[in-house]
Amino acid sequence: MYLKVQRDVSELRYLFNPDSIAVVGVSQNPSKIGSVIYQRLMKNKTQGILKAEIYPVNPNIKSINGVKVYSSISDIPDDVDLVVIAIPAAAVPDVVREAGENRAKVAVIISGGFAESGRIDLDEQLRKAIHDTGIRVVGPNTIGVSDPYSGVDTFFLPRFKQLSNGKYAESLPEISPGNIAVISQSGALSEVIMDCLKVSGIGVRAIVCVGNQVDLTVEDFLEYFSNDPLTEVIAIYLEGVKDGRKFLNALIQASINKKVVILKAGKTEVAGRTAYTHTASMVGSIEVYRGAFKQAGVIEVEDMEEMVDVVKALSMMKIARGNKLFVLTNAGGLAVLSSDLAPRYGLTIPNIPEELMKKLEELKNKKIIDPIVFLQNPLDLTAQGTCQTFEEVFRVVASSGYYDLYLLMPSHQPPSVDDTVIDRLFKVYREYDCSVVVCEHGESEWSKYIRERFDQLGIPSYPDVRRALRALSALATYRKPRNKIFEKTRETNRITWLHDLEEGPLSFEDAVKILNNYGLETPKTLRVLNEEELQYVVEELSFPLVMKIYSTKISHKSDIGGVIVGLKTQNDLIEAYKMLKKKVEDLKIEWEGVQIQQMVKGVELILGSSYDAVFGPTVTFGIGGIFTEVLRDFSVRIAPIDSNDALEMINELKMKKVLKGFRDLQPVNIEKLAEIISKFSKILWENPSIKQLEINPLIASGDRFTAVDIRGIISKNR
Amino acid sequence: MYLKVQRDVSELRYLFNPDSIAVVGVSQNPSKIGSVIYQRLMKNKTQGILKAEIYPVNPNIKSINGVKVYSSISDIPDDVDLVVIAIPAAAVPDVVREAGENRAKVAVIISGGFAESGRIDLDEQLRKAIHDTGIRVVGPNTIGVSDPYSGVDTFFLPRFKQLSNGKYAESLPEISPGNIAVISQSGALSEVIMDCLKVSGIGVRAIVCVGNQVDLTVEDFLEYFSNDPLTEVIAIYLEGVKDGRKFLNALIQASINKKVVILKAGKTEVAGRTAYTHTASMVGSIEVYRGAFKQAGVIEVEDMEEMVDVVKALSMMKIARGNKLFVLTNAGGLAVLSSDLAPRYGLTIPNIPEELMKKLEELKNKKIIDPIVFLQNPLDLTAQGTCQTFEEVFRVVASSGYYDLYLLMPSHQPPSVDDTVIDRLFKVYREYDCSVVVCEHGESEWSKYIRERFDQLGIPSYPDVRRALRALSALATYRKPRNKIFEKTRETNRITWLHDLEEGPLSFEDAVKILNNYGLETPKTLRVLNEEELQYVVEELSFPLVMKIYSTKISHKSDIGGVIVGLKTQNDLIEAYKMLKKKVEDLKIEWEGVQIQQMVKGVELILGSSYDAVFGPTVTFGIGGIFTEVLRDFSVRIAPIDSNDALEMINELKMKKVLKGFRDLQPVNIEKLAEIISKFSKILWENPSIKQLEINPLIASGDRFTAVDIRGIISKNR
Repeated sequence: MYLKVQRDVSELRYLFNPDSIAVVGVSQNPSKIGSVIYQRLMKNKTQGILKAEIYPVNPNIKSINGVKVYSSISDIPDDVDLVVIAIPAAAVPDVVREAGENRAKVAVIISGGFAESGRIDLDEQLRKAIHDTGIRVVGPNTIGVSDPYSGVDTFFLPRFKQLSNGKYAESLPEISPGNIAVISQSGALSEVIMDCLKVSGIGVRAIVCVGNQVDLTVEDFLEYFSNDPLTEVIAIYLEGVKDGRKFLNALIQASINKKVVILKAGKTEVAGRTAYTHTASMVGSIEVYRGAFKQAGVIEVEDMEEMVDVVKALSMMKIARGNKLFVLTNAGGLAVLSSDLAPRYGLTIPNIPEELMKKLEELKNKKIIDPIVFLQNPLDLTAQGTCQTFEEVFRVVASSGYYDLYLLMPSHQPPSVDDTVIDRLFKVYREYDCSVVVCEHGESEWSKYIRERFDQLGIPSYPDVRRALRALSALATYRKPRNKIFEKTRETNRITWLHDLEEGPLSFEDAVKILNNYGLETPKTLRVLNEEELQYVVEELSFPLVMKIYSTKISHKSDIGGVIVGLKTQNDLIEAYKMLKKKVEDLKIEWEGVQIQQMVKGVELILGSSYDAVFGPTVTFGIGGIFTEVLRDFSVRIAPIDSNDALEMINELKMKKVLKGFRDLQPVNIEKLAEIISKFSKILWENPSIKQLEINPLIASGDRFTAVDIRGIISKNR
Repeated sequence: MYLKVQRDVSELRYLFNPDSIAVVGVSQNPSKIGSVIYQRLMKNKTQGILKAEIYPVNPNIKSINGVKVYSSISDIPDDVDLVVIAIPAAAVPDVVREAGENRAKVAVIISGGFAESGRIDLDEQLRKAIHDTGIRVVGPNTIGVSDPYSGVDTFFLPRFKQLSNGKYAESLPEISPGNIAVISQSGALSEVIMDCLKVSGIGVRAIVCVGNQVDLTVEDFLEYFSNDPLTEVIAIYLEGVKDGRKFLNALIQASINKKVVILKAGKTEVAGRTAYTHTASMVGSIEVYRGAFKQAGVIEVEDMEEMVDVVKALSMMKIARGNKLFVLTNAGGLAVLSSDLAPRYGLTIPNIPEELMKKLEELKNKKIIDPIVFLQNPLDLTAQGTCQTFEEVFRVVASSGYYDLYLLMPSHQPPSVDDTVIDRLFKVYREYDCSVVVCEHGESEWSKYIRERFDQLGIPSYPDVRRALRALSALATYRKPRNKIFEKTRETNRITWLHDLEEGPLSFEDAVKILNNYGLETPKTLRVLNEEELQYVVEELSFPLVMKIYSTKISHKSDIGGVIVGLKTQNDLIEAYKMLKKKVEDLKIEWEGVQIQQMVKGVELILGSSYDAVFGPTVTFGIGGIFTEVLRDFSVRIAPIDSNDALEMINELKMKKVLKGFRDLQPVNIEKLAEIISKFSKILWENPSIKQLEINPLIASGDRFTAVDIRGIISKNR
């Protein structure tokens, strides 16, 4: 296996803007893939879109349609920037080597039949050719690249296909130039994205299918597009990456420069790690990816429709300052539906402030707003609302600057509204440069016309109120990540004595020392090995107390009844001791004594850290004691994180309300909690031999955080 | 206010199939609403769709286009079945009275300007005319009815409108006949539904907008369509009903005969009731509606798109036996996405069973399935899959009968698949009569053609995998309600001594007596008024004990520290007593003693009942103690319910897993719990003077259920 050399991606300019292209695998048969690609490139050249020279290559034919065919890349008189290869897999490595040796910069390998078909040998040969010559490769096993700006297009699927009734129907629409770069790990889905974007009236910067990623990966294209002036939004269909940390760093950079939207597939994938802690057993691969997405500030979408809707909004409309939405319509039902659905998308629909209300009442007095209209947000102008009403109301509201976002739903059905409403609303949008989305339900000619016109004017339109709200939500929540990159050094607090420890579960005492080393407090804990020692307990701790079995063999003591709470007297202590001792005897495990701590009351939290195969050390935080697991109410980040990230983790949780003081529980000091999470997150990062570490429960009350139980595991090789 | 007389809805046949129609409010001006409706009816008559005689009415004109105009309804020589009224509101009540007196059966009042504009007087006059004559009325303030079978159509909105570029565009598509009845409380949304159904290739039985519901309500139309042979699915856009119990009974009947889908608007509406119990404070109006929907077995949808998608599936495809889904595609990305999304829609994608696997391997040996295909579910045939592969694989899988549902996604992009795949798949579908949904992504001509053809063949198709799965979910989950209707009598266990109680909070002792009366056990509870009595406690109860303030004034004792747990000795008891006594003194409330119970360990539940303004008594069940409220993890039903309903309530909860034995908690006897919920649900129903009642917490462990605290409130007038 040849290790990939870390190289910069600047040579990708030869992929998107080559001066010359060789197509290896043209054929006399026009339906062969090589021929389809060649014809497509020639067509783009004829139309003046593609400027590059094009050289067909096939050792077995002399010419095609009167154009000379070259027998090999070496045979081409000029330098070739880009080589497109569509020949049987077995012949590919040599062609790649030849291309590299002839100073070609990039190859797109359409051919399949490598590792994905079990041909590891061909894969190896290909990697060697890449390694030896330094050529960059897209694929193999890909439909390649389509760039409507330069005309580079290797998508070989038929644009038109014949139906069985003899007619031809468009099968794959042409993409138009736009500002969305699409990176996909699925060929089929990139065509779907392309098709859906087209129908939504939006163009693309380029579409790239990465195929087997033998050289160029999602991370590389992410890096390239994040520095590409034609790109505004990067849309990724992601199945998985190999180097999580490289990916996360690329993602953060891309998110700083552009807006990134990801559809992550493979959510049901089962995490393969051995679970010593609850954290490690409950956190799956998708939760770790989600943590990374949140750290980078990118938007994760759940399906194709959402991908296209969100990408459309981000590519056309400016990001909003906040989530305060004003809804303007002439259809009462849509007003009600938007109120119902807005909270689900994190949008608020605040009441009209007094000053603005006065201005709207003036419009009512002037009969611009009908007298029957009830002035509120959402504002239903009723079927009496005219195009003028829409314009003037929108202007008055937009000029107030009170709202962050606008949802405009001028239903065309009432006779009083016609298509002049489009230009009227657009005028106000331009005057105030606000964040606006239009919803026009229905699929009549009229509805489609209205949506198309708004799209052309740069106001994204949607055929459904929920979809419009989801798009608004993306505009409301998209935030650039705080400029940052992971620390390169792990040396700060690294604990030197860890290498003396044996592999296996951490002892409680060692776990305590590790936490203390990172400035995390632990509760005073007495370990008692025989009954006589119990009399000294009261000198150190005061009632009520809790007693638990001390064992390096049992991980979850409370599950086996190894914890007794609420001990209030010396007598309680002695009885509890006897019970636990008997339990240990019954279980036939070694007697290592009991631990005694003061009982604390508060909110039960869980704070854990484990090692992910793709992303390395991660940190997990949850609320709710035993319910954390059942409800899956926890958040995950790639370690290490700072307090701001930790605050975001806390705010993500469904149960966060209990931290603010619920019933008889004290409100928790959130800032201090965030600091604790941040400190804790550094432990695994800086000490690779700790594989899993967990405080469970961590009981919080006001400023007090008590690590009631700590468990962890040491493993020397990762 | 005239009370509505309870009448059957059989006269609605004159609305949908009249022999004669009078249109009151025709005009020389063709764009007036009355004229538009008249012209539309005449057109339907000319085309032979509408069979009825049509009589234009206007006292001020003699003829219209050479047709005689009648001066009044009395002036018409024949009986009139249906009267459509589009004149100013003030004149409406007299016309309705005249129509009723002339034996007209139904009137559709298009005119607005009644209660919705504050004209209560006109509303009253209208009700009186209805009451006096017995005529049935749709509206007022509605766009009325559109029935593509009989041609009755009062939708007066323009079918075509002129764009500012001079061209005419279709603004409201014609509906075609189908089996979906639409009942809507919003005019605008019924047009949207109509438009979207049209574009999805499905027709409707009829669309009805109920307007102000001065006579005929949503419940009436529900009843009518549930006995209508042309109707298969009933789709309702619901803002709210007045008589919840009548609605629920109509819903149950409709759900037994047909399939019902509801979009409930107004979810954010705040519940107005006074909350003495936690139950009453956390259950809002939407939760009560949702409980009713579940009791009736109807499907609730969240937005328009879902409404149309689900209705389409239910109207075209048979209900599935279960939720086991087989996914067949040639696009790997779609296979992955369907796996990811299926669990969200309650669908499972089980592995291929051994016997079926053998048959698929035979297909592989015969080269019908390509050798590179990995046999699993979802099954990705890859771009090598042909139309024949699709057919033969579908046949082999369908013939096994192992799966309940099929999602077919033959992506058209690979050259090997053309439109003959449609007939091939249809053939297998017909052979095995299974539940099938097709997904074809994209908006190219080809994609649209494929979807249209599948729709025409009766296999519902969707342009998005998530939407297809959601439709499959409706087919998997739709279940007829168990045939039932609410008891008419409340006399079974009614507690006679309740009328002796004063209004206000229930005492603990009375609450205990109420529960016992319904066969619900309560824990032994001692009430102690002075310290001396504490010495007798051990004779009745054994340690550990819990002590709480007894007070008819404080509702939530634990919130104020009025509960002390874990008392293990006589000394503990005395100390706790002193503390609570001091607390009561500090709070300056009357001393009513303390209660002492044995401590129990188990899962904390909450069981409550409260009175809803629309639906009357309801029952609420939740898991998780204090977290129930934060997580809103509870289920609601309209009381009374049986044990089967109660089991459904339990199964709905996110935290139900903890009932099955979680960590150190005992598994709870679910059947016994369901019985308890059912018994409890009868209390408010049979005893109207109990307004709220709550057991919180109800601690469950195995077969033991301990009502640790009970509170309730008595109110004589409802």
